[in-house]
Amino acid sequence: MREAYHEQLDSISEGLLEMAHLVGSAMGRATTALLDADLKLAEDVIAADAKVDDLQRDLEDRAITLLARQQPVATDLRIVVTSLRMSADLERSGDLAQHVAKLARLRHPERAVPRDLRRTILEMGQLAQRLMAQAAEVLITHDVDAALQLEKDDDRMDELHRLIFQHLMDDQWHHGVETAVDCTLAGRYYERFADHAVAVAQRVVYLVTGEHADDLLTNPPATT
Amino acid sequence: MREAYHEQLDSISEGLLEMAHLVGSAMGRATTALLDADLKLAEDVIAADAKVDDLQRDLEDRAITLLARQQPVATDLRIVVTSLRMSADLERSGDLAQHVAKLARLRHPERAVPRDLRRTILEMGQLAQRLMAQAAEVLITHDVDAALQLEKDDDRMDELHRLIFQHLMDDQWHHGVETAVDCTLAGRYYERFADHAVAVAQRVVYLVTGEHADDLLTNPPATT
Repeated sequence: MREAYHEQLDSISEGLLEMAHLVGSAMGRATTALLDADLKLAEDVIAADAKVDDLQRDLEDRAITLLARQQPVATDLRIVVTSLRMSADLERSGDLAQHVAKLARLRHPERAVPRDLRRTILEMGQLAQRLMAQAAEVLITHDVDAALQLEKDDDRMDELHRLIFQHLMDDQWHHGVETAVDCTLAGRYYERFADHAVAVAQRVVYLVTGEHADDLLTNPPATT
Repeated sequence: MREAYHEQLDSISEGLLEMAHLVGSAMGRATTALLDADLKLAEDVIAADAKVDDLQRDLEDRAITLLARQQPVATDLRIVVTSLRMSADLERSGDLAQHVAKLARLRHPERAVPRDLRRTILEMGQLAQRLMAQAAEVLITHDVDAALQLEKDDDRMDELHRLIFQHLMDDQWHHGVETAVDCTLAGRYYERFADHAVAVAQRVVYLVTGEHADDLLTNPPATT
């Protein structure tokens, strides 16, 4: 019984990990499609999101089967319930990568991002992918310090998001309203994607420590 | 045992219902704050979201306790797991109402929405609140037809969302980039809020019929 339980739990963890890899990669490719106005790549990202949705349904079914058959309690139960929440975060992250790709497709053959915001969007895309890779690592290692670090790294995303707005509001802005709208939406997609990566890591922190990550950041344990 | 189970399940349903009422009302008040540039009302909405977050944590704890103590299987298990998902939808809806209120606060004492978009935003706000009220009703009645109707009603939200973009892209637009950015974000908040209301209803459909709402809409059962 315990062995079957652990096998099923492992398969759920592997599902989460695969989802994290897929959506991180999708966001990287979507960013390339956006910056290069690469229609083929954008279409690939848009089509590939179905795989993430399938994985989530699978994972949900397996979690429910596990709850029904193994009836875990205490920590084990919390792990399964938390996995369900994480899979929702990851599924949504996949949608956001898809949204970025759709922006690229919408403006093709034009580029949606003007030259003076390319560097910022590139950094947001790379950071988003890196945060998701960190979240995937935290899923395996359950390393609380790495999870808290991820939350701090996300501050840079918020900074970049603010930078975009400052740039849009600047009197020097001469790319028109359509491009401003595109950049507003793109900025929001990256920021939300990063929030979901942070949420995955925070849920691991809660599983391991029983404390919410926010409390740990403002009141770190006296022992460290 | 069964009686305790049903009491606990009822208390979870009541928690969901209360969340749906709170976030629907929050979106209504946030819209008023946005259109009237009412700072006091905006601050109230922003502060009140903590109550929704508390409700979600409570509900999650109760659901986990129920899973641990009653160890439901089959349909009962699906109900509890689905409730967890719904509570996440409703918590996020509360965040979105809060975002609308924050837009109002950010631009106070100016109005964030220009005169020519007031009617559209008002309709989006009212529709959002109505969709959430419908979702709350579906939570009680488990009425599949009402749930499917809600999904159709959401088409109007998508239409309004498109209307905003068309208006922003229009050559006649003379409110500048800042206002365009604000309206882009507001439009997205309403559209996402409505999506969450639809998701709540769709989850009820799945519980009742075992079929995903999308499939029912495209392939309605031959018997009806």
